[in-house]
Amino acid sequence: MSDLVFDLIKTDDQARLGTLMTAHGTIDTPAFMPVGTAATVKAMTPEAVRETGAQIILGNTYHLMLRPGAERVERFGGLHKFMNWSGPILTDSGGFQIMSLAELRKLDEDGVTFRSHVDGTHHKLTPERSVQIQHMLDSNITMVLDECTPFPATEEEATTSMQLSMRWAERCRTAFQRREGYGLFGIVQGGIYADLRERSAKALTQIGFDGYAVGGLAVGEGRELMFTTLDVTVPHLPADRPRYLMGVGKPEDLVGAVRRGIDMFDCVLPTRSGRTDQAFTRRGTLNMRNARHRDDPHSIDPDCNCYVCKNYSRGYINHLIMAKEILAAMLLTWHNLHYYQELMQGMRDAIADGGFELFAEAFAAEQAAGDIDPV
Amino acid sequence: MSDLVFDLIKTDDQARLGTLMTAHGTIDTPAFMPVGTAATVKAMTPEAVRETGAQIILGNTYHLMLRPGAERVERFGGLHKFMNWSGPILTDSGGFQIMSLAELRKLDEDGVTFRSHVDGTHHKLTPERSVQIQHMLDSNITMVLDECTPFPATEEEATTSMQLSMRWAERCRTAFQRREGYGLFGIVQGGIYADLRERSAKALTQIGFDGYAVGGLAVGEGRELMFTTLDVTVPHLPADRPRYLMGVGKPEDLVGAVRRGIDMFDCVLPTRSGRTDQAFTRRGTLNMRNARHRDDPHSIDPDCNCYVCKNYSRGYINHLIMAKEILAAMLLTWHNLHYYQELMQGMRDAIADGGFELFAEAFAAEQAAGDIDPV
Repeated sequence: MSDLVFDLIKTDDQARLGTLMTAHGTIDTPAFMPVGTAATVKAMTPEAVRETGAQIILGNTYHLMLRPGAERVERFGGLHKFMNWSGPILTDSGGFQIMSLAELRKLDEDGVTFRSHVDGTHHKLTPERSVQIQHMLDSNITMVLDECTPFPATEEEATTSMQLSMRWAERCRTAFQRREGYGLFGIVQGGIYADLRERSAKALTQIGFDGYAVGGLAVGEGRELMFTTLDVTVPHLPADRPRYLMGVGKPEDLVGAVRRGIDMFDCVLPTRSGRTDQAFTRRGTLNMRNARHRDDPHSIDPDCNCYVCKNYSRGYINHLIMAKEILAAMLLTWHNLHYYQELMQGMRDAIADGGFELFAEAFAAEQAAGDIDPV
Repeated sequence: MSDLVFDLIKTDDQARLGTLMTAHGTIDTPAFMPVGTAATVKAMTPEAVRETGAQIILGNTYHLMLRPGAERVERFGGLHKFMNWSGPILTDSGGFQIMSLAELRKLDEDGVTFRSHVDGTHHKLTPERSVQIQHMLDSNITMVLDECTPFPATEEEATTSMQLSMRWAERCRTAFQRREGYGLFGIVQGGIYADLRERSAKALTQIGFDGYAVGGLAVGEGRELMFTTLDVTVPHLPADRPRYLMGVGKPEDLVGAVRRGIDMFDCVLPTRSGRTDQAFTRRGTLNMRNARHRDDPHSIDPDCNCYVCKNYSRGYINHLIMAKEILAAMLLTWHNLHYYQELMQGMRDAIADGGFELFAEAFAAEQAAGDIDPV
């Protein structure tokens, strides 16, 4: 019995179509969650995020606990109200960012201590504190604190790390206050080792979560190993609960992971790329800084119906980039998020029609066909 | 007979209420024009600019001729289409920016040569070329090329400079291709010297323009001298044509200039301030970076009904600034432009009601009352 209702509407081989209901609205799955690290999806208003088709966004606990602080966000009525996003929010546990951003990290059984990259202050994050912070943020989906096992790791290292994560997962489950429309997700670890992944999945299922994430991937192992690991992990997750592949990824990663039964994703790629002049299209990415766009009156993708492609030319976007205008980041982020949401919508439609495999083949063929040349 | 229809609806002492009709729409005057230097009002979509109440924007010929280039904008169908702004556009002549931004400037009777601050290339701008560039941009209101007389300047220097500007104004008038809904504005120069201003105004009126700008102010002379100069200039301008005070200004400058019969304004202040953490309010400006806003759940101005004040707290905006988020500039620019448009609307309503003087007094009293403290 969960406080987050998940309806599995249809399956097409391993691919799944569903809905996840939260206190702040319903998410159609497979779903892509734009990343709103510091209480903003960078360079976007929440209304624009919504217009791209996004139904849920992700917030980063590490950043928010340091600035503006979880207690402050709580006093403002929670993250939804603070940032003017009325839809569902998932927050990570803070663990991953501590490992990649914080200084003087020290990990022991109790938790992890670190020094803030913002102001040098010292902090401690435990499973209980992470759950408490996410509660204060009013996150609809709380993630357990885990240790993201690095790649490469020996089987022994991966075992020790996974086992710690499982003990922390149990502590998170105990600390989490159940409420209707809110849930707690466990995170499978175990590196690239099939038996560890199976043990981790079973340990989490034994504890019981509202959803199950696959963690520790997209950390340098490459697409093939990521897919192999999904193949040996997903079958051990409960079919009636949502599955979330953390930090992934490129469009082809999403298609491959949906094919393997994943329901939820998050990644900075569409937003970060929007601030570094890259545009996603069904025929691969375009570097909009390239001088060949300078006189091009066509939109980024003539078949795209997003706000950006309906109103702006490649030439104009190239001009904004060369002139270092903020609007360049705003428009490219908007287009990229729309592209990701359209991709998810395409996958959902394909599963509904029982044609996911055909969709995936057509997607791969188009990606391989080379740049759109609208002239 | 002009190709820009200007209806003077009502006067209230010197203050004037009117409408100016262009090929791309009608402007209610007194009007404030947000500055869209490089074919974008910085950090704003055109839809957001429109939502603030703006009816016309300004483009900078100097920036646009260098990047992306007037010929390129023309190939894209003009500036309106290039930047997705369907409303009226006024462009300056490029002269002022050459004097403040370009290198190796050399001015003679024919025009001005300079080196681009963008790429070091050499260029020449003449009255004819400036008009031609603005035509290629499809500007609704073309400004004559003039020399902005520096402050301070001796009467002799100001005379020589003004006389050159008048000869250039005549060449611009000759070069300008008349079209319905498009117009050419002359620019009064003459420094702070009343007789020179009168001679300049009369010389321009003799040539005949669709509107008359007052140039060479807001260049360091201070508010009192600016107002004094308006007092000795505006009475010499035709009453049936719009009057535009270039590059002005602060809210109190706008009120004082409307009181003196000015109809149009442009200034980077609301947009630039939005990128440097400043918020305009009816009680003066707020530095939103200040830590006192950090825990403030109120909007910038609780009485403001703009998108920003309806949805975001001071605390959130302070957070965005501290986190160096692009959304900080987006929201503050939006609020500031809305503030300016509300101020213009307030003045237009007051003139319509015959109560401009009361409005101006109430405005001054509120500005003097100190910061809004909503707690």
